[in-house]
Amino acid sequence: MAKSKFEYVKQFETEDRLLPNCWIVVRIDGKSFHRFTDTHHFMKPNDERGLNLMTRAAQNVMEDFKDIVLAYGQSDEYSFVFHKSTNMYNRRGSKIMTNVVSLFSSSFVMLWPRYFSTQELQYAPAFDGRVVLYPTDQNLLDYLSWRQADCHINNLYNTCFWKLVQERGLSPAQAQERLKGTLSSDKNEILFSDFKINYNNLPELYRKGTILLRCKDSEPDATTTPTRTGRQMTLVGNHIHTKARPSTIVLHTDLIGAKFWEDHPEILGAKKP
Amino acid sequence: MAKSKFEYVKQFETEDRLLPNCWIVVRIDGKSFHRFTDTHHFMKPNDERGLNLMTRAAQNVMEDFKDIVLAYGQSDEYSFVFHKSTNMYNRRGSKIMTNVVSLFSSSFVMLWPRYFSTQELQYAPAFDGRVVLYPTDQNLLDYLSWRQADCHINNLYNTCFWKLVQERGLSPAQAQERLKGTLSSDKNEILFSDFKINYNNLPELYRKGTILLRCKDSEPDATTTPTRTGRQMTLVGNHIHTKARPSTIVLHTDLIGAKFWEDHPEILGAKKP
Amino acid sequence: MAKSKFEYVKQFETEDRLLPNCWIVVRIDGKSFHRFTDTHHFMKPNDERGLNLMTRAAQNVMEDFKDIVLAYGQSDEYSFVFHKSTNMYNRRGSKIMTNVVSLFSSSFVMLWPRYFSTQELQYAPAFDGRVVLYPTDQNLLDYLSWRQADCHINNLYNTCFWKLVQERGLSPAQAQERLKGTLSSDKNEILFSDFKINYNNLPELYRKGTILLRCKDSEPDATTTPTRTGRQMTLVGNHIHTKARPSTIVLHTDLIGAKFWEDHPEILGAKKP
Amino acid sequence: MAKSKFEYVKQFETEDRLLPNCWIVVRIDGKSFHRFTDTHHFMKPNDERGLNLMTRAAQNVMEDFKDIVLAYGQSDEYSFVFHKSTNMYNRRGSKIMTNVVSLFSSSFVMLWPRYFSTQELQYAPAFDGRVVLYPTDQNLLDYLSWRQADCHINNLYNTCFWKLVQERGLSPAQAQERLKGTLSSDKNEILFSDFKINYNNLPELYRKGTILLRCKDSEPDATTTPTRTGRQMTLVGNHIHTKARPSTIVLHTDLIGAKFWEDHPEILGAKKP
Repeated sequence: MAKSKFEYVKQFETEDRLLPNCWIVVRIDGKSFHRFTDTHHFMKPNDERGLNLMTRAAQNVMEDFKDIVLAYGQSDEYSFVFHKSTNMYNRRGSKIMTNVVSLFSSSFVMLWPRYFSTQELQYAPAFDGRVVLYPTDQNLLDYLSWRQADCHINNLYNTCFWKLVQERGLSPAQAQERLKGTLSSDKNEILFSDFKINYNNLPELYRKGTILLRCKDSEPDATTTPTRTGRQMTLVGNHIHTKARPSTIVLHTDLIGAKFWEDHPEILGAKKP
Repeated sequence: MAKSKFEYVKQFETEDRLLPNCWIVVRIDGKSFHRFTDTHHFMKPNDERGLNLMTRAAQNVMEDFKDIVLAYGQSDEYSFVFHKSTNMYNRRGSKIMTNVVSLFSSSFVMLWPRYFSTQELQYAPAFDGRVVLYPTDQNLLDYLSWRQADCHINNLYNTCFWKLVQERGLSPAQAQERLKGTLSSDKNEILFSDFKINYNNLPELYRKGTILLRCKDSEPDATTTPTRTGRQMTLVGNHIHTKARPSTIVLHTDLIGAKFWEDHPEILGAKKP
Repeated sequence: MAKSKFEYVKQFETEDRLLPNCWIVVRIDGKSFHRFTDTHHFMKPNDERGLNLMTRAAQNVMEDFKDIVLAYGQSDEYSFVFHKSTNMYNRRGSKIMTNVVSLFSSSFVMLWPRYFSTQELQYAPAFDGRVVLYPTDQNLLDYLSWRQADCHINNLYNTCFWKLVQERGLSPAQAQERLKGTLSSDKNEILFSDFKINYNNLPELYRKGTILLRCKDSEPDATTTPTRTGRQMTLVGNHIHTKARPSTIVLHTDLIGAKFWEDHPEILGAKKP
Repeated sequence: MAKSKFEYVKQFETEDRLLPNCWIVVRIDGKSFHRFTDTHHFMKPNDERGLNLMTRAAQNVMEDFKDIVLAYGQSDEYSFVFHKSTNMYNRRGSKIMTNVVSLFSSSFVMLWPRYFSTQELQYAPAFDGRVVLYPTDQNLLDYLSWRQADCHINNLYNTCFWKLVQERGLSPAQAQERLKGTLSSDKNEILFSDFKINYNNLPELYRKGTILLRCKDSEPDATTTPTRTGRQMTLVGNHIHTKARPSTIVLHTDLIGAKFWEDHPEILGAKKP
């Protein structure tokens, strides 16, 4: 049983250290979630249970990986931003991305009943993951803006599409044809004229996606409950059973403009967490 | 909401195509499973429920990824061998490893109650993953031999260690001290003299780990149940609720010697699955 | 002058170890050699001085890097095959490819006067380099066949093209137009009918390119000169001033068929050099 | 001659695009230059001909690659800094580093006689190359400071070492022993007390190395000769035969302090060249 005889195979493993001093983004994406949401009767265009479950799983990830300074989620994807100074797992890319995607996946399944109650999970879902580096703060902000712009564009389209299908009785193909080539302003107009919907009044959860931040004043041994207020701030404390108090806050707000970053200078400014 | 203004950030994503014509091994490993098995009261040195759950989750992975020709598991790790000719996900390494580790993780949690019944999962487990390439059949065989030799060495040690702790009342530190510097033959002797245990009679599940292969004669639309026999072959059909019949077979046998590969020429010889 | 304060920047260097047990090919290519050959009045379609200089520089590379088992050159490119077992520079790809391309480049310039005598080098030429891995012998043979097929296809085209320009007085654009869409057989026919040239009688140097091998019987301290014969074998001893006797042999022969590899089993069969 | 049958081997080539928006440093290093400088009777500790030849070859590289904003050389090494916005060769690392090292090597040989006149080159020298990315200006400055601090430390040591050998008659081993464990201040003291040398009065070429910058006011079609002055600025125009006027300037000055960067804001501030 000469183990040493075989150990040479370890040399085939490659090191994949990520360039230092760059923001590390791990983005996970649902695999074939079109089928998954159909099978599990998700509400269209947005299923609040599904979105909240995604966010709760993402909070679990932030709980475990303290070097994540922000997470952003929309639809079946979530992006986790590790501080550029992190030395987690010696910055090995494979190790970082597989740990994140694994913990997210197992959390998603474990927490499923909390959001879908008696509706059983029909099969194990999967997410893929990737790791991307951004050298500057501006590159990182543009990345996050890209994802939030994507959220808006898709949500506007999907809101129109499902209205046409669900309320006008169009077939999916007909709805798609109807929206072909339309601009944002056209879709806003369709919603307003045909369905009396002012798009800007729809929930920000749908229009802006979800931002997770760490509580600024969180002290591991604090015993008082911090008070949080504000229109777009939601305490997640009521969802958390395993911890005495929340360590992340949930926002549904614009991060493309400068205001968000002025309000939260600690995200980028932070020294190594 | 000029999405295009931000889309340049996609250029920061890197392609990580794996070298063609090499065997692809994805190995997943439990993260901090020492703590996980303690928290969940796993039997030591081997917990059959835990090992079977690992195997069942691995079968789920093989079910989804048809280019996996063999999987090998022991302890809290599993290795999945993709055929060298696979073109899955265009051989993008990140995509392959994150999908595997994600599906494994979500399956592990989803199937947990089937193996641990009323004992609840206390927290979401995580697995890390890595991808390694092996250019030749011999390199691949040596890799698998390395893992099986590792299984044997650890199991022999752990069997002794826990006997000393559980039946002799030694503290973990004392047991560790007792075994320091001992050879395999010494440990076999301890087991035999002190505990009347012939190591070679212990279950092969513990000593050899678990090999998963595809059923050679499996036809997706076959209605007859294949008959499988043999000492080391275990039908997993009784565990499977979601499928009419099994598409993988489970073996606990030696794969270091030539016999295994002579008995299963289809594994390496197979054309692209 | 606190050097240590700055040394952290070394962490930004990345390791690029090449997968073990694969054939390593370094291919170098002339940069903008269209312009270079025009400036230096190379004969078209083939300049024997230029081809021989390329080969002589390649021999210099083989002299220095003993793990190269074969080199193949044609036009302004050369491929160097390192034995799959080489551990040169710990298989760091950047180190290997830059050393090869650097020594080739400096040798090319240093040896220039030997081939171009009084015609001076007008500016410093450059070559780019790349490193490619091939897991199996067959992949390597196919790589070399690809390059030799490329040599043939280009040489047949160029031979026709320049005959039309040089002897028929066609402009380059006219010659290009004339050859557009022609098959190999058409080009052979043009050469034969219009120019009384049997393509197969042209020098093998042009049609097959150049293969460099190590002398099988070469002993570093041998004093007798080995005798080499054979139609396609050319001693390079007369070109070599710096060494007592040649350690590479130069061939212009087919390597796509099986015969070459049957005649030279030592190339692939060789243990680590 | 079915070329297409073999073309699949191109798939084994890997893309190695460098992360966008990072400074790209290519550093080349003489291979076995201890032997090379011995063979060619270089003056120790510094050979002005050799250093100037290195610099002249580096200028050739800057001439060809317009996206290089600065080069720094000392001893047998040179670092070339490509602007972080460069898109040269689509940022393929192998292509960039091999082109640089190749052109440097061929230039070194071609320009050799200009610096070493009748002393012939005995064999072709080689340089290795590597590419390193730096995400921020500060990282880049620290990299350059690291190399200049290295220059200083080595030069101080070598100056002492060779004084002891050349003027005191110590053997190399004795000189090495004498300097073992000495601090910078000790070495300064040795030079001053034993050899009446004030280290700070030695030429800046030796103590600071060489910085190459582009001429700010250089216009490709300008006909007037720019006037350059200043203690540490040396026109290289007199060395250049192939171009009407120089496009790089040569400095031997401190770049670790802030002053250099304040004097040359165009280096870092420059938009894409």
